Amino acid sequence: MKLRKPRPEVGVVMGSDSDWPLMEATVKTLARFGVPSESRVISAHRTPHLARAYAASAARRGLRVIIAAAGGAAHLAGVLAAHTVLPVIGVPIEGGRLKGLDALLATVQMPAGVPVATVALGPAGAVNAAILAIQILAQRRSALTVKLQQYKRELEAKVRKGNAQVQLQMRKIHG
Amino acid sequence: MKLRKPRPEVGVVMGSDSDWPLMEATVKTLARFGVPSESRVISAHRTPHLARAYAASAARRGLRVIIAAAGGAAHLAGVLAAHTVLPVIGVPIEGGRLKGLDALLATVQMPAGVPVATVALGPAGAVNAAILAIQILAQRRSALTVKLQQYKRELEAKVRKGNAQVQLQMRKIHG
Amino acid sequence: MKLRKPRPEVGVVMGSDSDWPLMEATVKTLARFGVPSESRVISAHRTPHLARAYAASAARRGLRVIIAAAGGAAHLAGVLAAHTVLPVIGVPIEGGRLKGLDALLATVQMPAGVPVATVALGPAGAVNAAILAIQILAQRRSALTVKLQQYKRELEAKVRKGNAQVQLQMRKIHG
Amino acid sequence: MKLRKPRPEVGVVMGSDSDWPLMEATVKTLARFGVPSESRVISAHRTPHLARAYAASAARRGLRVIIAAAGGAAHLAGVLAAHTVLPVIGVPIEGGRLKGLDALLATVQMPAGVPVATVALGPAGAVNAAILAIQILAQRRSALTVKLQQYKRELEAKVRKGNAQVQLQMRKIHG
Amino acid sequence: MKLRKPRPEVGVVMGSDSDWPLMEATVKTLARFGVPSESRVISAHRTPHLARAYAASAARRGLRVIIAAAGGAAHLAGVLAAHTVLPVIGVPIEGGRLKGLDALLATVQMPAGVPVATVALGPAGAVNAAILAIQILAQRRSALTVKLQQYKRELEAKVRKGNAQVQLQMRKIHG
Amino acid sequence: MKLRKPRPEVGVVMGSDSDWPLMEATVKTLARFGVPSESRVISAHRTPHLARAYAASAARRGLRVIIAAAGGAAHLAGVLAAHTVLPVIGVPIEGGRLKGLDALLATVQMPAGVPVATVALGPAGAVNAAILAIQILAQRRSALTVKLQQYKRELEAKVRKGNAQVQLQMRKIHG
Amino acid sequence: MKLRKPRPEVGVVMGSDSDWPLMEATVKTLARFGVPSESRVISAHRTPHLARAYAASAARRGLRVIIAAAGGAAHLAGVLAAHTVLPVIGVPIEGGRLKGLDALLATVQMPAGVPVATVALGPAGAVNAAILAIQILAQRRSALTVKLQQYKRELEAKVRKGNAQVQLQMRKIHG
Amino acid sequence: MKLRKPRPEVGVVMGSDSDWPLMEATVKTLARFGVPSESRVISAHRTPHLARAYAASAARRGLRVIIAAAGGAAHLAGVLAAHTVLPVIGVPIEGGRLKGLDALLATVQMPAGVPVATVALGPAGAVNAAILAIQILAQRRSALTVKLQQYKRELEAKVRKGNAQVQLQMRKIHG
Repeated sequence: MKLRKPRPEVGVVMGSDSDWPLMEATVKTLARFGVPSESRVISAHRTPHLARAYAASAARRGLRVIIAAAGGAAHLAGVLAAHTVLPVIGVPIEGGRLKGLDALLATVQMPAGVPVATVALGPAGAVNAAILAIQILAQRRSALTVKLQQYKRELEAKVRKGNAQVQLQMRKIHG
Repeated sequence: MKLRKPRPEVGVVMGSDSDWPLMEATVKTLARFGVPSESRVISAHRTPHLARAYAASAARRGLRVIIAAAGGAAHLAGVLAAHTVLPVIGVPIEGGRLKGLDALLATVQMPAGVPVATVALGPAGAVNAAILAIQILAQRRSALTVKLQQYKRELEAKVRKGNAQVQLQMRKIHG
Repeated sequence: MKLRKPRPEVGVVMGSDSDWPLMEATVKTLARFGVPSESRVISAHRTPHLARAYAASAARRGLRVIIAAAGGAAHLAGVLAAHTVLPVIGVPIEGGRLKGLDALLATVQMPAGVPVATVALGPAGAVNAAILAIQILAQRRSALTVKLQQYKRELEAKVRKGNAQVQLQMRKIHG
Repeated sequence: MKLRKPRPEVGVVMGSDSDWPLMEATVKTLARFGVPSESRVISAHRTPHLARAYAASAARRGLRVIIAAAGGAAHLAGVLAAHTVLPVIGVPIEGGRLKGLDALLATVQMPAGVPVATVALGPAGAVNAAILAIQILAQRRSALTVKLQQYKRELEAKVRKGNAQVQLQMRKIHG
Repeated sequence: MKLRKPRPEVGVVMGSDSDWPLMEATVKTLARFGVPSESRVISAHRTPHLARAYAASAARRGLRVIIAAAGGAAHLAGVLAAHTVLPVIGVPIEGGRLKGLDALLATVQMPAGVPVATVALGPAGAVNAAILAIQILAQRRSALTVKLQQYKRELEAKVRKGNAQVQLQMRKIHG
Repeated sequence: MKLRKPRPEVGVVMGSDSDWPLMEATVKTLARFGVPSESRVISAHRTPHLARAYAASAARRGLRVIIAAAGGAAHLAGVLAAHTVLPVIGVPIEGGRLKGLDALLATVQMPAGVPVATVALGPAGAVNAAILAIQILAQRRSALTVKLQQYKRELEAKVRKGNAQVQLQMRKIHG
Repeated sequence: MKLRKPRPEVGVVMGSDSDWPLMEATVKTLARFGVPSESRVISAHRTPHLARAYAASAARRGLRVIIAAAGGAAHLAGVLAAHTVLPVIGVPIEGGRLKGLDALLATVQMPAGVPVATVALGPAGAVNAAILAIQILAQRRSALTVKLQQYKRELEAKVRKGNAQVQLQMRKIHG
Repeated sequence: MKLRKPRPEVGVVMGSDSDWPLMEATVKTLARFGVPSESRVISAHRTPHLARAYAASAARRGLRVIIAAAGGAAHLAGVLAAHTVLPVIGVPIEGGRLKGLDALLATVQMPAGVPVATVALGPAGAVNAAILAIQILAQRRSALTVKLQQYKRELEAKVRKGNAQVQLQMRKIHG
């Protein structure tokens, strides 16, 4: 007997399926914290009705946070934020040109009243969008706070491990 | 007896009424060429339904070109372009910060399939949006082509007049 | 008899008291939604112990979101985020130089694992930090969701009012 | 018996034949909509007479829109616009340096009176120049409007197909 | 009896008479070195025929160097360089937006074969265009070399005078 | 009877006496720590011999650190660093154009082997150049270390005082 | 019998062990001048306690200079500088995005009172951080001054050798 | 019997022999016009004495123009210009970081009185430095003017040839 899948709490939206290799890290980070998510390819400019419908129904469907990733004139996060009062997290994606400055500015410079919580360009942003979403979900689920504290310790452990590697390299130089 | 006003052919949309002092030049330039226009304050993020409704009904209502002016994460032109196949002209507006680079990039860097015809930042862009709209309308109304040619001659005359001014200044230096 | 003040849920931290005129909008927006907040001047570089102590004790003291505003090499939000698993919202402040690009990049480009939810430069960002904080608090308090929906309608009303102003201007031109 | 080729309505001008691989998409998009075009390599700086002659005779020869692609100090679109009242669409091309910011600014920042309808840098811009030209031609040929609406639906279908791909990937993660 | 004015050797061209206050320094610096010049307001986009005619006839009329000042999509210097083999010096003018970065890039990033000798933005560039022109004219007139060496000594004297001022200020601090 | 002035340990060099109002803060900060300094106006481009002579003789004359402030193509710090093995601190000065980005990049991007210790643009940089110089001098004079620790406490006190101001403002809002 | 290793005078801190290939040049340059150093991987955001502890104890443990390398929102150098009065040298590291502009601005734009001595992006900066540290240490150890002068001569010799290579190439062209 | 080599008229100076592959185009273009040149590797920061000596003696040794290529904090052209009244042409070289913006700004933003004639970044600039030098030399040698006019025709021919290539491609599309 198959168990019913838990209802997604985070919607991960991307402008094109070519963004998947980047946004996979978002989904996997959420999964690692036990946060169910759904993914959608929605274009603010090519499927505006979908964008509106998705954002407008998001809260009703049980979503608590929306993550939106887009490049170039990255309107996706802003367009979703226009149709919902859920927190919308924007991941600017760097294309080949202008090194992502266009996507960053188009995502972050929202007018007063309609915020987009913008995270870093590229892979760091993909992970951080998930972590930020989890920090938001932790408002109601204290178990996530415990996991976030554990995650912080793991980050620290990784840095310490990196430090050990560098000590080995130093010994090669200083003998 | 009052004559019926001609049906607007160009819709001039701006994100805030604080953009009016800039966009007034667009309306006046259109008026000078005898092109009837309408103006609307519509925010892509604060009144997304209005934005969609405006663009979706624009062609039906007889509009032939849409001009959209916005600053910051300037999504307005792109959002309108998503809902119409009319040509959409974008005027990036420089706010106090980043000197308008954000608005320029957010307007021009549209994805393949959904163009925004972007003109210069600021006052030059406000005038040029009107001229570009007139060049587009001239496709069906050759009288506008004649007026555009006349306008080009006036621009030239203005440059020649400026040149005369400089000759006066030169004489002060060279005696 | 004086009532006890409600415990602050949002901590609004700024690098200098000269940031107050900007961040006052954050506090007032929170107050308008009935969200109790506290404000602190804490410098990441001049009072690092304070920064650490503030962030480390924030959750324990009942804070649920931290908003941090800073300019230049804007490390404040990142430093606070390093010491807490609460969501940290960063407001980049533009100084006289580089038009705030330095503050924006120093706030948003956080490494994987330690996000800062970055909002727009300047006044829009000050308001949006509050709105984003309220969206986050609304996770546990559905009354805030209702207020946010009401706020969205007010934003829309403001745009419509601006539109009415522009119609008056248009009549002056088109007669 | 050979049929006479239809007279080109769009002139696609590029600064160098090395731009062809990019601009081929412009020509092919036009062809797909049944819009006859011609292509020319013309340099604003190396063949200025050609540039002038081309623009000055364009309307007379039946062209209705000019598309100009150039990189670096991208003067081509502006120089053509100086000699015609036809709409001129500018495609900024990114070279290896400055990531195309030079070409973008040199194309879009035209003075009042002489607009260049600027589209995005790179491949998206090459396609969008064609779509914008078609939107302009559709002013007189309503069949193109129908095709543009069909094209919008195809863009949407492509996004939905991308979405299906991502759902497959999601299933691999969530099981 | 009036003496015939010497034939101009340097042509100072500007895109608008509003550039005169800046370019006056160019003319005055040339005059100070005894180099006869002429000034013209010519717009690459509004008076393209004038631009071509001016550049094409420049050498024939005895000019030896052309200085061209323009802002925004600053094509003027490049357009003149396309029509002459005389050295063309470009002075990028900063407008209110983008702080002159547009004018600088549009002036300097010329394609191989058609150089524009670009000098600094703003007042320093206006003076330096004159000095560079004089350095070029000094190729045939060694008297100018002597004057340039004298000018270098005057620059030095001015720095030494500034130094004296600072010593006075220092004494106020150190007593 | 007048006491002999102490021999300067820090040389504060600026490209123009117009930089004095900014660099006065450097001299005053040094004076406040009891560090004797001298100031010079030296231009890398107008008085290159002076620049060389100053740097080449600096160590011999007892200087231990050189601070150099310049704007635009800010070569001064680099040129001095080329002629001495003393630490050279560069203060980039923002002119009216490009917001100091030119000065910052021209100061900091030195080639391997010839460092310039670059501090922030503008007033913060002027103070920090002094503090950095004092940190360097503290290598041999531990009394300066004690003063630097005291200075850090004063910075902290100033932040706490700013915090008190903000608490007053908060009370006005929250009653 | 094993000799005791000399106590490190320079601490080389990097945000991740992936920075080692770059920062190895710092350690090797220090070693070449006989300056003992230690290396640590410490993240301002992932191991903030470590960062504080390292900086706070640095002087006590005998360190005289700290070098900190980080990319993105490069807070590491600033965070260390907040906890010590030792000179802190910042090496901005360019990641794949924004070409290191983020790291440069986040490192250099420190507030008044807490300087970071910033060197160039990338490999040149890694070497120059070491040279600058040695220039600082030379304040108390004149033997290092002699070595720095010798190093300057070697740099010169390398340039002369490069010149000889170019002469060979020239002969191939000019015969 | 070997003929004496003609005395170089143009000095091509580069900061490192790694710039040779780029600057070879400068030397070859000069050679193609029959202009004798010499090349030197001189670093403004590593061999400042050489830089000064080279510039100070250049005119005396018969040079008429100096071309200087450098990257990063590109001071070379400015340092040479400080020591000569010959025209100095600057070629900014893009390194791996900041895409050459640093070199461009450090070369072009010279203070009033000491111009550097700046050409484009990269390969186009390397060729254009030579063409500009030839335009300057043509002041005294009219044979060069004839050659420059011939070169302009060749540039045009190359564009026409490129055009022919594109016509072939067009035929593949349009049949």
